[in-house]
Amino acid sequence: MADTNPVNEPDFAGQLEAWRVRMEAALAARLPAADAVPARLHEAMRYSVLGGGKRIRPALLFATARTLGLPEDRVEAAACAIELIHVYSLVHDDLPAMDDDDLRRGRPTCHKAYDEATAILVGDALQPLAIDLLVRDPALPDAAAVRLRLIGLLCEASGSLGMVGGQAIDLAVEGTRLDIAQVEDLHARKTGALIRASVLMAAECAPGLEPAHREALARFAAAIGLAFQIQDDLLDVLGDTATLGKAAGADREHAKPTHPAIIGIEESQRRVRLLHDEALESLRPFGDHAAPLRSLANWLLSRRY
Amino acid sequence: MADTNPVNEPDFAGQLEAWRVRMEAALAARLPAADAVPARLHEAMRYSVLGGGKRIRPALLFATARTLGLPEDRVEAAACAIELIHVYSLVHDDLPAMDDDDLRRGRPTCHKAYDEATAILVGDALQPLAIDLLVRDPALPDAAAVRLRLIGLLCEASGSLGMVGGQAIDLAVEGTRLDIAQVEDLHARKTGALIRASVLMAAECAPGLEPAHREALARFAAAIGLAFQIQDDLLDVLGDTATLGKAAGADREHAKPTHPAIIGIEESQRRVRLLHDEALESLRPFGDHAAPLRSLANWLLSRRY
Repeated sequence: MADTNPVNEPDFAGQLEAWRVRMEAALAARLPAADAVPARLHEAMRYSVLGGGKRIRPALLFATARTLGLPEDRVEAAACAIELIHVYSLVHDDLPAMDDDDLRRGRPTCHKAYDEATAILVGDALQPLAIDLLVRDPALPDAAAVRLRLIGLLCEASGSLGMVGGQAIDLAVEGTRLDIAQVEDLHARKTGALIRASVLMAAECAPGLEPAHREALARFAAAIGLAFQIQDDLLDVLGDTATLGKAAGADREHAKPTHPAIIGIEESQRRVRLLHDEALESLRPFGDHAAPLRSLANWLLSRRY
Repeated sequence: MADTNPVNEPDFAGQLEAWRVRMEAALAARLPAADAVPARLHEAMRYSVLGGGKRIRPALLFATARTLGLPEDRVEAAACAIELIHVYSLVHDDLPAMDDDDLRRGRPTCHKAYDEATAILVGDALQPLAIDLLVRDPALPDAAAVRLRLIGLLCEASGSLGMVGGQAIDLAVEGTRLDIAQVEDLHARKTGALIRASVLMAAECAPGLEPAHREALARFAAAIGLAFQIQDDLLDVLGDTATLGKAAGADREHAKPTHPAIIGIEESQRRVRLLHDEALESLRPFGDHAAPLRSLANWLLSRRY
């Protein structure tokens, strides 16, 4: 095992909750008002973004900022941008033509609460809103070059070679047999890319970060991203619908290729532990400063929902 | 009448064709290869973007660049970005949950040629591809601040207060009775915003452009954008499916609020002529340099398809 985490986990749950509350306010302030024309679209955008979600990607930005000695303010707009992209992808993934889910975060999905056309447009509108935050938000580092690199990281992570490409592969392989390398490639795109971008965008906000430190963070993000996805798939098998806030057993129902389906539950749990060790090991260059990222990793990989 | 156009219109049709050919190559070079993983998604992206379309927004960028004495190279990436956003909006608008169209540019729509899930993802992936061009394309002005303003213009034009908001209003008002001011507000969002952005993005690439000249171009773009939409709605009433490459009479079928439906064909034609005059009038400060924009306006408002 790598370093065990010195932080008291119950305390860290309080920290996560504080970040979640902070994000709720930050997102609410940056979304168009619910009565701005067109009101139904803006209402549906706020319905989809606010009032739920663990805000794991923002937590990764805040924890990375702390590790690098940056004030949280500095990365708040980037945290909002990445969360808006994440939410847009959920709204579109839930559509009948995609995963066809009725329940998300314990509430009706956007197309159930509104209608399909509105859900498509909510996703479409969240993308430029996210990018525009990186263009204009006054709390971000001022330098245009930094903002441009943030936008580049987000576009790369969310495009056809990243998140959207992963979703396309996921739909294409439903019911087919993949080997574990193919599943890990799928995960690296579908969920890994945005998790990696969360860490790297926070790193981009730290002036003069050493390349070796940036690479260490990229390794951390890759390990944590994959472990997070395997953990998610384990929860889908082991959890129940009430705790998850979405339908348990959905992966098997859709015949999704997952670690538990291919290598079994025990072996999947072992893979999570190995990736967890790898993640903690990659934080070694930051010493005690990396306590927030260590605690977050520990929390993410021991969560029950 | 404002200045009549000194350029020979048949010659200008040749210019438009040259720009169209140029755009085909420019877009083909910037889209992911059809065999890059995930291949089906990338194939569908190329199918949707290439091989059709009048490329009117790119023509507006090129004509504005010429008017301002900029080489066309300078705005090519911005022209690609705006065309990718336009195409994504068509792919999503054609979906069954939206306008439910089977035919676009004389070919099956993306969800007909592929499937609905792929069409949703094609649109989703074209957005970050468009923005990423503005981040990375080497032919654009080098200054990060200029690129950032281009991205801001594109996000503003395509978001919930622009194009996507217009589409949301359009769907909401189907079958209801609007007055002409409401229809013009709808058009300003749904098609006007991106046409305005085409002109203003080209203007942004001109170093040291006078504010008065920028405002003149914004006025030109507003007039031409609305006139173009009314002309489109007139063609839907007066044209035939073979010439249009999409279903004629679709607006009436969907009970869309349009100028011809509200103020009649003759009055709509008069409105196009007045806006045409206004557009040409706003180009006066540029003198003869504005010949490309004048010719484009003349062509746009006398087109038959």
